[in-house]
Amino acid sequence: MNVNGNPTRTIWPTADFAVEIIDQTRLPHEFVTLRLENMRDAERAIRDMQVRGAPLIGVTAAYGVALSMRHHASDAALQATCDMLVKARPTAVNLRWAVERMRALLSPLPAAARAEAAWQEAARIAEQDVEINRAIGQHGLEIIRDIHRQKLARGNSGMVNLLTHCNAGWLATVDWGTALAPVYAAFEAGIPLHVWVDETRPRNQGASLTAWELAQHGVPHTVIVDNAGGHLMQHGLVDLAIVGTDRVTAQGDVCNKIGTYLKALAAKDNGVPFYVAMPVSTLDMDLQDGVQEIPIEERGQDEVTHISGLCDDGQVRRVMVTPQGSRAANYGFDVTPARLVSGLITERGRVAAEAGAIQSALSSKDK
Amino acid sequence: MNVNGNPTRTIWPTADFAVEIIDQTRLPHEFVTLRLENMRDAERAIRDMQVRGAPLIGVTAAYGVALSMRHHASDAALQATCDMLVKARPTAVNLRWAVERMRALLSPLPAAARAEAAWQEAARIAEQDVEINRAIGQHGLEIIRDIHRQKLARGNSGMVNLLTHCNAGWLATVDWGTALAPVYAAFEAGIPLHVWVDETRPRNQGASLTAWELAQHGVPHTVIVDNAGGHLMQHGLVDLAIVGTDRVTAQGDVCNKIGTYLKALAAKDNGVPFYVAMPVSTLDMDLQDGVQEIPIEERGQDEVTHISGLCDDGQVRRVMVTPQGSRAANYGFDVTPARLVSGLITERGRVAAEAGAIQSALSSKDK
Repeated sequence: MNVNGNPTRTIWPTADFAVEIIDQTRLPHEFVTLRLENMRDAERAIRDMQVRGAPLIGVTAAYGVALSMRHHASDAALQATCDMLVKARPTAVNLRWAVERMRALLSPLPAAARAEAAWQEAARIAEQDVEINRAIGQHGLEIIRDIHRQKLARGNSGMVNLLTHCNAGWLATVDWGTALAPVYAAFEAGIPLHVWVDETRPRNQGASLTAWELAQHGVPHTVIVDNAGGHLMQHGLVDLAIVGTDRVTAQGDVCNKIGTYLKALAAKDNGVPFYVAMPVSTLDMDLQDGVQEIPIEERGQDEVTHISGLCDDGQVRRVMVTPQGSRAANYGFDVTPARLVSGLITERGRVAAEAGAIQSALSSKDK
Repeated sequence: MNVNGNPTRTIWPTADFAVEIIDQTRLPHEFVTLRLENMRDAERAIRDMQVRGAPLIGVTAAYGVALSMRHHASDAALQATCDMLVKARPTAVNLRWAVERMRALLSPLPAAARAEAAWQEAARIAEQDVEINRAIGQHGLEIIRDIHRQKLARGNSGMVNLLTHCNAGWLATVDWGTALAPVYAAFEAGIPLHVWVDETRPRNQGASLTAWELAQHGVPHTVIVDNAGGHLMQHGLVDLAIVGTDRVTAQGDVCNKIGTYLKALAAKDNGVPFYVAMPVSTLDMDLQDGVQEIPIEERGQDEVTHISGLCDDGQVRRVMVTPQGSRAANYGFDVTPARLVSGLITERGRVAAEAGAIQSALSSKDK
């Protein structure tokens, strides 16, 4: 998608065999790119969350292996590189997947062939991510176009108002995003639309990342506090909610950023379609009841008690919003039961959030 | 309630006929009291939100009239004072009510008698507020005690976990508060309890004011982001939700701070009792369907795009969290339909959020 009018990805190789990324910790107040020259650069970018979002983390790790192979391609170097990268963010499923894919490909090869093969494989993983998201965008576009046509048929302007939570945009992937891929596809198709962007406390990925990427691409949007979605839905100001997900169970329960469940309840209460955009790789067929079975990460309380932003003097600072001596709790995710989900938007098409449909359409990951 | 171990109210007269308040704009980072010596001081305190919360605004205005009468007690001065105070925050119902009560009492009196009568009446309004809230606290205490006993009977520790939104504590009233009055009453009664405090974006009255007053009084509490309540309820970590309200309709719909509706949906979905604490004066028998009939104030977008807090250098600063060029919307309140409300806790006891019960128990405001 566009940055300052130029088509941009979150990660790209350079002609001299380095890799460049956007330093996402500096957004939305500064657009800074970083050059990764070796495996340690890639590991640091993942660990310090300069790159984030499961698909992007996976691609960065794959490139990390490739960068390493340019310098040292021995068996020992390959194993050490893979072991170190996997630990950069231990809970990221895509990170492990990408690293193990690289390890499996490279291990049987002679050391001299590894650098070139790794480079090509990392690029292939990146392109596959783009293609998956493009397909999600096309399938989601159909939903947005249907709503657009229904509104036109009712004599309305045809403007489609969407609501999204957190950042499941192109910044979380290589390009397009998951939840925002249908938004970009509809925008490219000329459908008039507007996105309500939940700020998504505590880390504010909506107010910072989602708002930034929509603004850069020219997509009309408005930032709201996480408290506002229910009121908007009560008053007919939301036609469709689309969110991303970190994990979906075999029965269609959806784990996503904390607060997603509250928006899904409001959508249900007001007859607003609530869709979850996901690559099929996000499905975890080993889990059934998401509320009972998915462990929810508790993070440091600083993310609740303190907020970062841009001061009038141009400095980015952190301010404390709570009193000294009040503790805070910080649950990273929640689980939205399948009964609140209108459907899953995958690269294979739309699928009902229901065990039978998921089993038949999605359970084979290699389809 | 206590501040630094000393019983404190939000407003109190001095021996030399001035009035002191807590400057709530400085909380939670500084505890500063201000001396009001004349009507202009009172008007400024209301307008600049150094005092906030409908009951406290009313009492401050009544004292504003009393301060004015010490200096000028003519008919013209009385009318000018009342007219100016009413405009300090035009939408505050209690402000108008308190000022008109003072005007009606003082107008028939000779000018020489007005200063003393006004002083006594302002004190009476303050004491009435305290008594109303104390009664709300006692009626709410019964609910908390029932839950405590049920948990004990199930072999549980008996610890009661409450959740509240925004600030409906003693800082919004003269003492006790509305939603927090039952919490303080239960705490005084020795019932083990813990309060989940929604930070309540965009103005953060939970993270700042509610957390501060609970901390000062020694009530165990934890600040959470507004997104977290649903997750807590799904996992049995909330026994009871209590919120305040700005207006309740004849059929029991509840207008309160934006986001209340989302918490009420989660409470319903998880079988958690959801109560609304309110003085009977908050009832508006002219309204039926709150979602359709109550106009929702839209406030400036700065409250969403910017957040104030304490920097590491000890300065309170404002930081911007959104990118340049992203607009924000700021709806101040939402309406929770009566079907989601377990009951109303008033100074006359518990009342179902339902037209018949409200009509018979509450419609006579002078009971």
